[in-house]
Amino acid sequence: MTLAEELRGVVGRVSESPSDRETHGEDLTYHAPRLPDVVVYPETTDEVAAVLRLANERGVAVVPFGVGTSLEGHVIPLEGGISLDLSRMTGVRIHADDLAATVQAGVTREELNRRAGDHGLLFPVDPGADATLGGMAATNASGTTTVRYGGMRAQVLGLEVVLADGTVLQTGSRAIKTSAGYHLTGLFIGSEGTLGVITELTVRLYGIPEYTIAARAAFPDLDAAVRAAVAMIGSGVAVTRVELLDALTIAAVNAYKETSYPEAPSLFLEFGGTEKGVAGELEAAREICAVEDAVSFEFEREEEARKRLWEARHHAAFALTAAAPPGTKFKATDVCVPISELPGAIRHARGLVDDRGIEASIIGHAGDGNYHVGFMVDPADREAIEAAEAINGEIVEYALARGGTCTGEHGIGLGKVAYLEREHPDLIPVMRGIKRLLDPNGILNPGKVLPRG
Amino acid sequence: MTLAEELRGVVGRVSESPSDRETHGEDLTYHAPRLPDVVVYPETTDEVAAVLRLANERGVAVVPFGVGTSLEGHVIPLEGGISLDLSRMTGVRIHADDLAATVQAGVTREELNRRAGDHGLLFPVDPGADATLGGMAATNASGTTTVRYGGMRAQVLGLEVVLADGTVLQTGSRAIKTSAGYHLTGLFIGSEGTLGVITELTVRLYGIPEYTIAARAAFPDLDAAVRAAVAMIGSGVAVTRVELLDALTIAAVNAYKETSYPEAPSLFLEFGGTEKGVAGELEAAREICAVEDAVSFEFEREEEARKRLWEARHHAAFALTAAAPPGTKFKATDVCVPISELPGAIRHARGLVDDRGIEASIIGHAGDGNYHVGFMVDPADREAIEAAEAINGEIVEYALARGGTCTGEHGIGLGKVAYLEREHPDLIPVMRGIKRLLDPNGILNPGKVLPRG
Repeated sequence: MTLAEELRGVVGRVSESPSDRETHGEDLTYHAPRLPDVVVYPETTDEVAAVLRLANERGVAVVPFGVGTSLEGHVIPLEGGISLDLSRMTGVRIHADDLAATVQAGVTREELNRRAGDHGLLFPVDPGADATLGGMAATNASGTTTVRYGGMRAQVLGLEVVLADGTVLQTGSRAIKTSAGYHLTGLFIGSEGTLGVITELTVRLYGIPEYTIAARAAFPDLDAAVRAAVAMIGSGVAVTRVELLDALTIAAVNAYKETSYPEAPSLFLEFGGTEKGVAGELEAAREICAVEDAVSFEFEREEEARKRLWEARHHAAFALTAAAPPGTKFKATDVCVPISELPGAIRHARGLVDDRGIEASIIGHAGDGNYHVGFMVDPADREAIEAAEAINGEIVEYALARGGTCTGEHGIGLGKVAYLEREHPDLIPVMRGIKRLLDPNGILNPGKVLPRG
Repeated sequence: MTLAEELRGVVGRVSESPSDRETHGEDLTYHAPRLPDVVVYPETTDEVAAVLRLANERGVAVVPFGVGTSLEGHVIPLEGGISLDLSRMTGVRIHADDLAATVQAGVTREELNRRAGDHGLLFPVDPGADATLGGMAATNASGTTTVRYGGMRAQVLGLEVVLADGTVLQTGSRAIKTSAGYHLTGLFIGSEGTLGVITELTVRLYGIPEYTIAARAAFPDLDAAVRAAVAMIGSGVAVTRVELLDALTIAAVNAYKETSYPEAPSLFLEFGGTEKGVAGELEAAREICAVEDAVSFEFEREEEARKRLWEARHHAAFALTAAAPPGTKFKATDVCVPISELPGAIRHARGLVDDRGIEASIIGHAGDGNYHVGFMVDPADREAIEAAEAINGEIVEYALARGGTCTGEHGIGLGKVAYLEREHPDLIPVMRGIKRLLDPNGILNPGKVLPRG
């Protein structure tokens, strides 16, 4: 029997169509596509376990797939095999009285927020894309609200995970805290589908703040904008979001979204809480921006205007893509540094791209010390990719020399394997041991996270 | 050469004195003492690595020791061997501009707070005891402030860990977030000295709130107090602490600390932030307490009075010990349940002890759904210990049936090994595999966390 025929014996929907294989062979970035041999769409944990048992026995690679919005090639099936599309696993149970929800892996964060919103609750992690919760857990996603709420590891109370051999595990509990043995929940979060397939997760929810304000501050130069963000964090201003956008990004956003934001380095801010509390924080932020000679400081209370602002921020990568020649694709750095190092790090990055005469945007989760330099590259242009990669390498070295990390939130995937080795050479043997323990045949997302051993 | 003679070749201070061995042979609880053969006091990571290499080659057990305040027998050397006392590793570096600190394992949380306080900063995790940061990380400590700041896993950015074979690892970074490979930081936190010895850690610090108020509310019965705490969490009142104390505990505290708190079930609360913000939260909390017919609601702004209140709470276990016959020791349950289950769980626990005619106190980190039933037992009285253990077992079953955990914060140690098996039978093989990977000779804190395999 062929692989597809065998799979049809254990799972309802199995596709070998070229279009299905193509949509499961690439992500949003410059990484070269590679098609899976077959795409399967399980609807239950039992089906996931059956697929994995079969693949494990046959030694066929399995790559979990949510909606394909990860940024380092995580979902590309480097060895072909099975793309395990979890988007049909969409069960949601809201435990409103416990400020928690249990969701299947294929639920997207916007869908969860719609369901939680019916109870006056929200799920805070916001990486921009409408990713699945399973994918967000697998990549330890964070994003614009991390400065207030933390990333996925702070939100997930427990997981259902299927191991390579089909064993189903339940980690954690529905309680807010537990100290019951080794922290396997945290180990599977961020393991990028290489240690197990997350099929269900229990996450924390939060009350929707009674009052929310979004603000925009534009600055005379990038350095002033970064300094203002760092000063807000240092002085404890309670921001929910503090996002840095350079002039190039704002210009691309204005063209793409038909907005008219001043085309200057800017901070996009959000504050949530009680009306009085928010007013106090907003005033503190405005004073800090004034010290850095902000050229404007505007805020919006209305939900529509706030939504427009964050959509503009979230669509920055699409806007940059739209502004670039057809066929070019997006490539981003993702270092994170201790907050006091952020102004120097961004000056260094700006200097690097200017010196090389390369057009690049800089956006950042400035409150976390995490920023992205975005390049538009033609995947066929080896030289352009190498130039971008050389800059990425220098940015990573700069961050590591100052106590930072090569990836604040995008993860390792296939694009940063060499940087993981550079950052944590001492940890690779331990990580490799854990990989062998949980996936002895190496079928789970091979070629990701760890260097080929 | 004897073990002590060999150890003297690699570490400055080695003791075989009966008094040193005795202080390293027990914790604060009812668990039976067992003396180590030798106590060593390393002062550097290199010395820790040398001790472990030697022990690993000889197959000698090593039990890390901070100040011995853990509650499930974690530090008791069940197989004798080496007690590795880290209390002389007391280096502190405050990175004030990064809201972080790097400390050696033997630094206590009060010392860290003194040093951080010079910069207007605080380290938030507060388990009551003045534990070492190394011990707090090893046991994933949390406590009274977890409802606002989270426990140790939320605070630790990176670790230096020495493995059983003497290999020194650096996990994490000084950046606020990282997605660089498997989350080994989180794996070592809460591993209770069974996977490696934590020698240094980088932790987050926070600005000291400009305004803090402590409050006490007394209630007609325990159930009303619990309901009020749950309502505060459900409605999003921004408490920094929300602690439940029953009448028995308050009476013991009054006798021990010469205070005169009303001897009724009570909530001890804390609020921190801006003056206006705190006033708003305090009023919201007071209204909730009034709905539950609170018989009193008093608050203190002065630091001395606040300190007295929290000292009273923190000394509850000492107070209960002082009130009990000499020779009796403390034994506590530690389940954590989803917050909506807390009123039922505490009614169930109260009913159990009343039915059996056993005197027991109930205190809880009510905002987290975590509570402790405390028994004073004579370690020689097998029957009393078994009765307490039977109640503990029923409390655990109740919690597990409702999505909770057998331990919210005390950990497994040797006292809860059977409950870990009960809660996570499916996870034991994975945990055991990780243990074998990192400590193949089983020298690190043998008999703790995992059942004998």
